Amino acid sequence: MRMYDLIYTKKLGGALTPGQIAFWVKGAADGTIADEQSAALLMAICWRGMTTEETLALTLAMRDSGTRMDLSSVPGIKVDKHSTGGVGDKTTLILGPIVAACGVPCPMFSGRGLGHTGGTIDKFASIPGLKVELTDAEFLRSLRETRFANSAPTGDIAPADKKLYALRDVTATVESIPLITASIMSKKLAGGADALVLDVKCGPGAFMKTLEEARTLAESMVAVGKAHGMRIRALITRMDAPLGWAIGNALEVMESVEILRGEHADSELAQMSFRLAAEMLLLGGAATTLEEAETKVQTTLRDGSALETLRRFVALNGGDAKALDDFSRLPQPGQAIEVRADRAGYIQAIDGRALGLLAMELGAGRKDRNDVLDLGVGIRVHAAVGQEVKEDDLLFTLFTKAGAQPDHAAYQATIQWNEGTISPSSWLLATIA
Amino acid sequence: MRMYDLIYTKKLGGALTPGQIAFWVKGAADGTIADEQSAALLMAICWRGMTTEETLALTLAMRDSGTRMDLSSVPGIKVDKHSTGGVGDKTTLILGPIVAACGVPCPMFSGRGLGHTGGTIDKFASIPGLKVELTDAEFLRSLRETRFANSAPTGDIAPADKKLYALRDVTATVESIPLITASIMSKKLAGGADALVLDVKCGPGAFMKTLEEARTLAESMVAVGKAHGMRIRALITRMDAPLGWAIGNALEVMESVEILRGEHADSELAQMSFRLAAEMLLLGGAATTLEEAETKVQTTLRDGSALETLRRFVALNGGDAKALDDFSRLPQPGQAIEVRADRAGYIQAIDGRALGLLAMELGAGRKDRNDVLDLGVGIRVHAAVGQEVKEDDLLFTLFTKAGAQPDHAAYQATIQWNEGTISPSSWLLATIA
Repeated sequence: MRMYDLIYTKKLGGALTPGQIAFWVKGAADGTIADEQSAALLMAICWRGMTTEETLALTLAMRDSGTRMDLSSVPGIKVDKHSTGGVGDKTTLILGPIVAACGVPCPMFSGRGLGHTGGTIDKFASIPGLKVELTDAEFLRSLRETRFANSAPTGDIAPADKKLYALRDVTATVESIPLITASIMSKKLAGGADALVLDVKCGPGAFMKTLEEARTLAESMVAVGKAHGMRIRALITRMDAPLGWAIGNALEVMESVEILRGEHADSELAQMSFRLAAEMLLLGGAATTLEEAETKVQTTLRDGSALETLRRFVALNGGDAKALDDFSRLPQPGQAIEVRADRAGYIQAIDGRALGLLAMELGAGRKDRNDVLDLGVGIRVHAAVGQEVKEDDLLFTLFTKAGAQPDHAAYQATIQWNEGTISPSSWLLATIA
Repeated sequence: MRMYDLIYTKKLGGALTPGQIAFWVKGAADGTIADEQSAALLMAICWRGMTTEETLALTLAMRDSGTRMDLSSVPGIKVDKHSTGGVGDKTTLILGPIVAACGVPCPMFSGRGLGHTGGTIDKFASIPGLKVELTDAEFLRSLRETRFANSAPTGDIAPADKKLYALRDVTATVESIPLITASIMSKKLAGGADALVLDVKCGPGAFMKTLEEARTLAESMVAVGKAHGMRIRALITRMDAPLGWAIGNALEVMESVEILRGEHADSELAQMSFRLAAEMLLLGGAATTLEEAETKVQTTLRDGSALETLRRFVALNGGDAKALDDFSRLPQPGQAIEVRADRAGYIQAIDGRALGLLAMELGAGRKDRNDVLDLGVGIRVHAAVGQEVKEDDLLFTLFTKAGAQPDHAAYQATIQWNEGTISPSSWLLATIA
């Protein structure tokens, strides 16, 4: 088999066989195929696309390049969730305990953040003592005993994806539906779950800018999952503001706990988390209709079983479960600073990406892979899309290191104003099944 | 300037600036830009194409990566010719002396062959003693004294093209009109001529298979030449058989001399050579109409001045000019073998590419860059397209090393048969000015 023939076939718009794709992925990962040949094929894939069969073959070849989690010892349909990511997105901390409390095992692998704010793992790491890198045995024990497990991957998950991603990053080939699909799905399949709910963000601050792009990606991921025999469903959700009031690691734990207590029940964050949880229950076989699933979700809030599941998960894995009820045990900021409106108007949108970068400057996110986070700092967002604001109204509270002097104008500039009132559209743009 | 931005721009279908293209070509040649980034850009160019301005910028950047011939000391409009190449193509040996004999300086750089049969330089090298690698001074002297000069390039012509071509060769990005255009034109512009006639071959055995492809390439080269202020014109010529009766280096010299003597005047090779020469005279200002130019061409044959020019060129550069009149002084084969028809029918086409490879096996061409040629061996083609053949009619005479036992069936298989008579179409398919 010659790599040249693969490039030539794809250049002309043909489809590669699973054998050819496996040959490429193996060769790219072990260095027997030259980077320039992989780069040419990557660009040809951006050009010509891939069929579902090709994308699945790429997904499986990348999955099989590294270690895989074996969850077969845990009974039940294991359901995972993936989000394409957004500032303030702490849905994993909310829906994981809810789904587990409903009896559906919820195994999740999360990453550390780079740029913007922290990743899900950084948020969990702000709970004192909680071990966020679980061994396989610890992960399985957590899943068996609490039905919830969340860990940074400890094995070498899909190293071929890492290698190809590094290449895509310098060759302007990141933006390709089949390549994005295979990158996400290879890691999700390596995690070992039987079912997957996808949250594909859509909006100016998201990776997918338009509904059409988001739909194409969601359909591609759902098609690949189904071709692999996986239970899978995708929601496309609007992203025109940070999700929830909290940006910053300990702050996001607080907000998640508040929602599990039943607070902020009408917020977009709560509604989105509940809906994603309900979809997971459907895939996990714990409900047969969306209404039934949503009722089960609400029950776990009302009877406290979701929060109790989170407490048990934290305690089992070495964390201070009391911190979930007494937030003073979580990392604290040095000072609080109010940022107020420098004008009046209606809020059209809030630039979550810009706020994420500002939170990173405060210490909530990493500029560099080796940066140590300040888990207590962050931003409380008071402003909301559609809200009428008068001059000097409170927009943000910044929780910073003692003595920090943030630039108020930079925060004010994250608000996009409108002269008249606007009625925010639904956060749920589409479902793909 | 970041290479990433160039790739991203081209991936989206945008145009690169001359500054960006110069940055890339310089970086690709000196190794400061990674091969994987160049490969991605090359594939993006295959995808999105290039404007004439971009192609000219690429041409000039590649030209300027190496040495350039300065012909300004030679008076007159210097006219070069380029052919996209075909088996049996010895037009340079014929039209060079004709054009020079008409007073138009004809400076030509030619290559050695690899695969198929020898290149123009190998054909010249079969004339005993002729120096085929001229210094700049020798080249200029030949051009001044005989108005004809032909040499293998001695300087480092367009090294950036060599580097990028090597990359294209392994990344399936050879076939791209702007990349082919820039590769050819960069080397032609480095040669220093003021005007250029292009012979773009078209047919199943040629690089350009269809008239549409050939026209696109011809128009691209003409556009780039004109944008650079060059006098330029292209002919698109049919290639459905080897050109002329001779394949093999000394044999091709003999056929060229025969045509300069006035023999085979109705052959496609002669007609094509005369027309290309006439186009060169027009560009060189030696004639104002095609008729006038064609008359001048015929005069150089009738009065012997074309052949005399070739004799003077050979003698000036150390060669045995007597060999042009006494072919026994040229390299000779060991034996002659007749290949006869194994069936009757009408000849539809003759696979020149396959015959070229067979001639290579005889020793007339190089499999490997370092192979030493047997300049005396080759093939005389008796078969002609459109001809009615009876079983056992003579198709080819093979001139081989003593004792060689060529496979007759392989030669017979180069003939494509037709049951009825066919009338060959004109060899001239289109002119692009």
